[in-house]
Amino acid sequence: MTLAMSIETNQLQQLKPLSVPNRLLLGPGPCNAHPTVLQAMSTTPLGHLDPAFLQIMDEIQSLLRYAWQTDNPHTIAVSGTGSAAMEATIANSVEPGDVMLIGVAGYFGNRLVDMAGRYGADVRTISKPWGQNFSIEELRAAMAEHRPKILGLVHAETSTGCRQPIDGVGELCREYDCLLLLDTVTSLGGVPIHLDKWGVDLAYSCSQKGLGCAPGASPFTMSPRAMAKLLARKTKVPNWYLDMLLLGKYWGAERMYHHTAPINLYYGLREALRLVSEEGIDNSWARHQANVEYLWSSLESIGLKMHVEKQYRLPTLTTVCIPDGVDGKAVAKQLLTEHNIEVGGGLGELAGKVWRVGLMGYNSRKESVDRLIAALTQVI
Amino acid sequence: MTLAMSIETNQLQQLKPLSVPNRLLLGPGPCNAHPTVLQAMSTTPLGHLDPAFLQIMDEIQSLLRYAWQTDNPHTIAVSGTGSAAMEATIANSVEPGDVMLIGVAGYFGNRLVDMAGRYGADVRTISKPWGQNFSIEELRAAMAEHRPKILGLVHAETSTGCRQPIDGVGELCREYDCLLLLDTVTSLGGVPIHLDKWGVDLAYSCSQKGLGCAPGASPFTMSPRAMAKLLARKTKVPNWYLDMLLLGKYWGAERMYHHTAPINLYYGLREALRLVSEEGIDNSWARHQANVEYLWSSLESIGLKMHVEKQYRLPTLTTVCIPDGVDGKAVAKQLLTEHNIEVGGGLGELAGKVWRVGLMGYNSRKESVDRLIAALTQVI
Repeated sequence: MTLAMSIETNQLQQLKPLSVPNRLLLGPGPCNAHPTVLQAMSTTPLGHLDPAFLQIMDEIQSLLRYAWQTDNPHTIAVSGTGSAAMEATIANSVEPGDVMLIGVAGYFGNRLVDMAGRYGADVRTISKPWGQNFSIEELRAAMAEHRPKILGLVHAETSTGCRQPIDGVGELCREYDCLLLLDTVTSLGGVPIHLDKWGVDLAYSCSQKGLGCAPGASPFTMSPRAMAKLLARKTKVPNWYLDMLLLGKYWGAERMYHHTAPINLYYGLREALRLVSEEGIDNSWARHQANVEYLWSSLESIGLKMHVEKQYRLPTLTTVCIPDGVDGKAVAKQLLTEHNIEVGGGLGELAGKVWRVGLMGYNSRKESVDRLIAALTQVI
Repeated sequence: MTLAMSIETNQLQQLKPLSVPNRLLLGPGPCNAHPTVLQAMSTTPLGHLDPAFLQIMDEIQSLLRYAWQTDNPHTIAVSGTGSAAMEATIANSVEPGDVMLIGVAGYFGNRLVDMAGRYGADVRTISKPWGQNFSIEELRAAMAEHRPKILGLVHAETSTGCRQPIDGVGELCREYDCLLLLDTVTSLGGVPIHLDKWGVDLAYSCSQKGLGCAPGASPFTMSPRAMAKLLARKTKVPNWYLDMLLLGKYWGAERMYHHTAPINLYYGLREALRLVSEEGIDNSWARHQANVEYLWSSLESIGLKMHVEKQYRLPTLTTVCIPDGVDGKAVAKQLLTEHNIEVGGGLGELAGKVWRVGLMGYNSRKESVDRLIAALTQVI
């Protein structure tokens, strides 16, 4: 035994059992998880190599492929939040010196730039004001100029509420022998996605938005083209935790131990995906679209305007212009403290200019809109 | 809207609601989480910048410091499992070319070697057979030979059940102007630790062992000495998700958004730490020691032997020698399928030679031992 040492208690706190306010989460995420998901998360853990748990992993893989509309064998949940899955796409595709072209029209495009730089990419960017997107002609011109090995786009920019059309981009990437990497954090489950038909090679998402789960286990997929680039690497992936060659041996037939999975989050994700599959992914998309159109008309009826052009607005996340003379931060604070409703503020170019209102997963319901409008009417 | 495309259903599965067997997890982890923890995890999420959630983060920080016996301001939970926290210590301390000396006497020493190499360290190792540890004289000789900037040791080797004494190591590291990095994955909460008195500069752990939480949110701490090295880096930390300069701005006074925390896991971790603080960390250590001694005597009473010399055995994890002629894998399988009890198998040098039996956190109870012994008696 070690020598007996005295116990320091200066950091000790006397706490009561956990008690948290019950918020309606209508910000950019997390949203409220489905009650079935929350219940599943309180199930006692299994071991990470228990056959009963391995079956749950298989189910997650299959249902993730369905939700994303892909047959990629390497489709898994990363044991971290969406940003970890984002970093996983970079870590497993970029080799030092690779040219990576990134479309930046918001906060998360910039995050891709930061991450890609850390992995040694020769990063090139094309930019648009926050709230706009890139046309196929603009993308074609940039591809011709930069000849990247990877093109990174954000399908649903969480900071702006704008959708990036993907039609034709996959063909363009093949023409230039380039991988297509797509951020679907705020689209999976709520916005139509057809990864394989679009020719997407790397995609990531999160659990706590369109899928209606709690945050912490994050969808990741890579195509055989992306896997071929990974297998041809000359050096190890410079990130052990997110190394898909190691993770593939755990999620695949070998079942080789890599790390202890966040068991209870996988329970929740399995249930969230089961609920999506029961609803039907196309029905889930349609529900998000119907409820957001109700939101837009309701907001307009109380005199508010949307930041993004209607045809490119996301069904999952809406940027609402803060009217002149209104203190946006004060309104958000009042919604939170007096009405238990969370909405998000603007980031970057949109700081102070918009609120971000999410209707995602379980929260994409008419009642969410009605409750928000009633509260806003009182507060503004 | 995107062009309408048909929905592929080949990956769709018709699943029933989640139903998992109720196992007694007596392997190397995860263990069964405390019922209070599981209940907390099913609480509806808060936003990651909600003042009510920020308070929970503060409580986690303070109680983690208490559990580890440190006053390090930078003490947080990483949003991933223990391996992510492990990688965080490497990513934030190693700069390319730094000599890192690692003590390898088991699987997790080797994992440190793998990770440190990926971050460009000039890795040197000292080795011992699995189940043994390093004397202070051996460490001193290796420090004199390699003059490392970082010394990495595993306090509680989960693959062997052996404890590495730390007395005197902190002083040795200061003598050589070297940081001390310590794996406390299988010790935090169950084995006496005094990080500050020992002079440890970087440490990591997990939630699902001695703390009795579910896996997925992992303790990380760094001393002011380690922070000084980080602040003096010439290049960005080559890992965005685990960059402690960014994470420090979220956990610290700035509250700057970094990533969406795994909210429900933090609920669980807060409750697990609260329960440890109510019991008293020294009482938790004593409970683990008393129950493991009961395990050892019970195992001996049915003719089984332990792999590690008694004075260095961990109170949290015991390696039990598989008797000659007994099929260890078959026994473990029978325990799982017929008795709903999980024990672990051996790794590396100990593959096929030992079972690994954990008594950690909530599972460190006399009843766990009684149930295991009763089952083992039937199975062997």
